[in-house]
Amino acid sequence: MDIFLEEAIKEAKKGLSEGGIPIGSVLVIDGKIVGRGHNRRVQNSSAILHAEMDCLENAGRLKAIDYKRATIYSTLSPCDMCSGAILLYGIKRVIIGENKTFKGPEEYVKSRGIEVKVVDNKECCNLMESFIKASPELWNEDIGE
Amino acid sequence: MDIFLEEAIKEAKKGLSEGGIPIGSVLVIDGKIVGRGHNRRVQNSSAILHAEMDCLENAGRLKAIDYKRATIYSTLSPCDMCSGAILLYGIKRVIIGENKTFKGPEEYVKSRGIEVKVVDNKECCNLMESFIKASPELWNEDIGE
Repeated sequence: MDIFLEEAIKEAKKGLSEGGIPIGSVLVIDGKIVGRGHNRRVQNSSAILHAEMDCLENAGRLKAIDYKRATIYSTLSPCDMCSGAILLYGIKRVIIGENKTFKGPEEYVKSRGIEVKVVDNKECCNLMESFIKASPELWNEDIGE
Repeated sequence: MDIFLEEAIKEAKKGLSEGGIPIGSVLVIDGKIVGRGHNRRVQNSSAILHAEMDCLENAGRLKAIDYKRATIYSTLSPCDMCSGAILLYGIKRVIIGENKTFKGPEEYVKSRGIEVKVVDNKECCNLMESFIKASPELWNEDIGE
């Protein structure tokens, strides 16, 4: 498996071990992880710290030229907010662990010139399926439903 | 002027007084401000705390039914990220101070069923025009350019 997706899965599991929603993300530039994060709705009582947002925040203030050659990995298909952050910074490529348990606006993101690849990873899918079954209300809150 | 837009402008000015980018936002539900915030790129060295994101974060974890009758005010047209957050939560209405110095994906947001109103406020416009003139690099960083 892609070593960077593995790191995103580690983040998702870290979130789960903290009592949070198991979604993780890493930002990669020139073959190096420059930021990593996981969903912090529960841990920080946050309405905005989805995994990708936490990852981008932890990467710090980067230059436009850095984002534009970066790849963001997420264990789950990015929602409207996280897709919007990817569009704002013009991140070159998005690698998605799975989009079976939730699918964000992937077609729209592609139409705006971002590369989007879904790898259909079973571990990512299992993490979310178990979580949604155990905590449906928390999951609905996270996606505004 | 709309009292809530006035509050968003107060937030923008607070940000400016802190050495930050002068954009402010408030979230209103049933005629009451439930969250307020301003751009914190400089203050928190943040890549994600645009005014609307800071406002949504400060409002805390709300229920889906609350977002769906809320109005978010922003002194400036929301960017892709902030528009995405508005879409994620299905916020009912967006009131925009101005969209002359920057215009986010307003048409896309409307196409997704959100009410969008631009009030073309001079004070909002003046704040941004002065800021962009004084700090063009910082402004470009904030919009990923």
